[in-house]
Amino acid sequence: MHNAAYDRLKARFARIAALGEAAAMLHWDASTMMPPGGGESRGEQLAALAGLAHELLIAPVVEEDLEIARAEGEWEEANLALMEHAHARGTALPTDLVEATARANSACEKLWREAKARADFALVRPALTEVVRLQRETAQALAAALSMGPYDALMDGYQRGITAADVEPVFAAYEAFLAEALPRAEAIQAAKPAPVPLPGPFPTELQRALCRRLSERVGLDYEHARLDESLHPFCGGTPADVRLTTFYDEKDASKALLGVLHETGHALYERGLPEAFARQPVGDAAGMAVHESQSLIVEMQACRSDAFLGFLGRELRSVFGGPAAPYAAENLAGLWRHVERGFIRVDADEITYPAHVILRFRLERAMIAGDLEVADLPGAWNEALHRMLGITPPDDARGCLQDIHWHDGAFGYFPSYTLGAMAAAQLMKAARAAEPGLDAALAEGDMAPLLAWLRRNVHGKGSLLGFQDLLRAATGKPLDPQDFIDHLRARYLA
Amino acid sequence: MHNAAYDRLKARFARIAALGEAAAMLHWDASTMMPPGGGESRGEQLAALAGLAHELLIAPVVEEDLEIARAEGEWEEANLALMEHAHARGTALPTDLVEATARANSACEKLWREAKARADFALVRPALTEVVRLQRETAQALAAALSMGPYDALMDGYQRGITAADVEPVFAAYEAFLAEALPRAEAIQAAKPAPVPLPGPFPTELQRALCRRLSERVGLDYEHARLDESLHPFCGGTPADVRLTTFYDEKDASKALLGVLHETGHALYERGLPEAFARQPVGDAAGMAVHESQSLIVEMQACRSDAFLGFLGRELRSVFGGPAAPYAAENLAGLWRHVERGFIRVDADEITYPAHVILRFRLERAMIAGDLEVADLPGAWNEALHRMLGITPPDDARGCLQDIHWHDGAFGYFPSYTLGAMAAAQLMKAARAAEPGLDAALAEGDMAPLLAWLRRNVHGKGSLLGFQDLLRAATGKPLDPQDFIDHLRARYLA
Repeated sequence: MHNAAYDRLKARFARIAALGEAAAMLHWDASTMMPPGGGESRGEQLAALAGLAHELLIAPVVEEDLEIARAEGEWEEANLALMEHAHARGTALPTDLVEATARANSACEKLWREAKARADFALVRPALTEVVRLQRETAQALAAALSMGPYDALMDGYQRGITAADVEPVFAAYEAFLAEALPRAEAIQAAKPAPVPLPGPFPTELQRALCRRLSERVGLDYEHARLDESLHPFCGGTPADVRLTTFYDEKDASKALLGVLHETGHALYERGLPEAFARQPVGDAAGMAVHESQSLIVEMQACRSDAFLGFLGRELRSVFGGPAAPYAAENLAGLWRHVERGFIRVDADEITYPAHVILRFRLERAMIAGDLEVADLPGAWNEALHRMLGITPPDDARGCLQDIHWHDGAFGYFPSYTLGAMAAAQLMKAARAAEPGLDAALAEGDMAPLLAWLRRNVHGKGSLLGFQDLLRAATGKPLDPQDFIDHLRARYLA
Repeated sequence: MHNAAYDRLKARFARIAALGEAAAMLHWDASTMMPPGGGESRGEQLAALAGLAHELLIAPVVEEDLEIARAEGEWEEANLALMEHAHARGTALPTDLVEATARANSACEKLWREAKARADFALVRPALTEVVRLQRETAQALAAALSMGPYDALMDGYQRGITAADVEPVFAAYEAFLAEALPRAEAIQAAKPAPVPLPGPFPTELQRALCRRLSERVGLDYEHARLDESLHPFCGGTPADVRLTTFYDEKDASKALLGVLHETGHALYERGLPEAFARQPVGDAAGMAVHESQSLIVEMQACRSDAFLGFLGRELRSVFGGPAAPYAAENLAGLWRHVERGFIRVDADEITYPAHVILRFRLERAMIAGDLEVADLPGAWNEALHRMLGITPPDDARGCLQDIHWHDGAFGYFPSYTLGAMAAAQLMKAARAAEPGLDAALAEGDMAPLLAWLRRNVHGKGSLLGFQDLLRAATGKPLDPQDFIDHLRARYLA
């Protein structure tokens, strides 16, 4: 069956993964618990863990073992292929490039904070130019090692199994839909009465208990999870010990509630990964786009559905009290499915969000290809936003300076958001077809039928399949924007 | 000055220390934050960190570098010597002995929990016999590698720079004092009016705020510390990020308060270690006995002094209210300096505590030497306790089964408790001589003069000196039981 070389590799990758788990816990601690004075030594700890994990990955003995390793069976073969892929990525980049990149990213990110605060792109332009130069070099080196296009090689670092050539027509189709649908959605919305805000107050203690109760209701087991607070909410930790965070605003209970439901989607994915391959590459989550599909299928597809909003309204009223009207499903839909053209990606609604991502995908792809220079970025940004949403940012802080990603060296990540949203719609359609009682259950606040389907078709698959293959296996086709478009039509244009 | 080999060793030991810091944070998390289901993967993470740290320590290149490394200056030379010492300890034990020990300790510890609950020594006897056999073997191997006696080599793992030959006469002198002093202390106590308990209630929230405020008052900076709750209080974390824990009992505010002051002493030591040698062997705390001296100098010497009790009484009354009498310094002294012969070490008072330790020191030393068999342990225990305290445990649960230490393979650790108590008295006497305003400051709740002296003479010395040399440099003499005896005479026999 397997040979000794494969067993050695499994032991080595289990160790690498354990170091990654330790680092995940230390990151969580740094965001939630650590006193301010602990930052510097935390940096030393994380650097030691990352350095050792990298050395374990790129050691010459790994290459020797990969050459002679034999594994049998679908899962073990995939595991071995993923080890080879990780080793190829790890060894593709010369040390001086890795170090130059780390320095350039760190320097640029610092300048970006100031540039954004002052809305002054010129301040960060030279540093960002250097970041892009190094990202091009990185992309070239990875492309050569992995036999794929340079931009694809960057995307591959965040989500395996999909290329820019797959993404471009999908995004083009969405752009065409948006041009027609957005004005209609706005007109329909304008014709409806304005929603009334939920009556407060929303004491933090009550919000915390509600968030915990609803995330449990949705399927999270707190024997293996915690919910804490941090400035920027996230889902961290490890599959056996998931750490969710949120931020409570006593003026608005919606943010924490919807945020926790979103993070619960991420958490349920981690919890559902195949235990038999814990701490092996094939047992990991399949990538950032698949991860985002799991947060969005819970938050956007399930929890903001008409069926679930009825349940959620009753739950909210039982905690915060007051008249029934604001808690009605239609009113919550008015509050939580409000469409508005805006400059800021993270504030965008379900319809306009992809426009922000499509814009970034095309610009970063052009920058990596050498077809767009950093000096031309603000103009290209504003032009693209105006073409898609008909609005122009009043300054670069609300334009090309708004996101940290590029200024921290993250190129190839942005598509994940919209790939995730689209995959969520496609998976939801397939789940509804397979589980006819799914919506009736949602109306009772019962996520079990959806969750069971996701565990079989997504969570339990780990990294066995890349993005497109996972969708093919689960829904019978690769990524198809039509399911997302149909979902938006039903929700916003009916 | 230094050569490249020494610089390589410094980088390697910094990495080993960073892994140790990461492990310390994960241990803290496991005791305070981790959901129950996280235990298994936490074990994997800690095993990976420990395994990698051990491999870094024993790598053949370390021996090569140690042979050619040159360091100049007192601190760097000591650092190099400590690296050599750590490497010698790390390589002294064959892998099969280490693994057999881990298995035997783990098996024995599990049986011990049941044996203690049932007060049935026979249940754990075979497992403990195996633990002792392996400890003897370990001690022999370490002794050969370190050129010291077998029991001394075990003690050295907890506290460097003191031998059983140093300890024995000190403990003998204490035993002689105890025989004379204990009946007198009891008679003096019996002649006084019984202390009145503090009026409750003691809500957890109020206790928590008080503990935090007083630990700050004593000198802890919460920019670099946290105070949380755990079943077994401890001081963990790292020098830049100390994590204290306690346990609040709403029926008794004394436990958490005195416990936090004790842990604050440990924390102040960690905080005061020399930053210039952070994550180097010479920058570490000097050992478990020195650590205990720092918790006890704060808790026992300073905070339970007549001067500080007056301040503490006012603080407690301001929080919990009620009549003045229970909060008077003399009443708090009656409550918190109560002398009583008992079976249980962890419940013992300042005078009888050393008896429990002396007993264990002699028995474990005899077991390691092969002069006492495990089968004879209960009898030897009961005889020794009766000789020193005149009492006999009604069962082994209150005798030789009470502590986890031996059943978990910890031999050579017990002396640290009393060496720490004695060193605390010796250091306090020297501090008082050097800082004439020390007690006047304590009466105002001001620990600054004591803390400044400790930072110069203990904390800031890191691991530059072993136990006896540290005491010589700070107090002009090696460990001298007379200072502790004088302290007890003044406090209990005046």
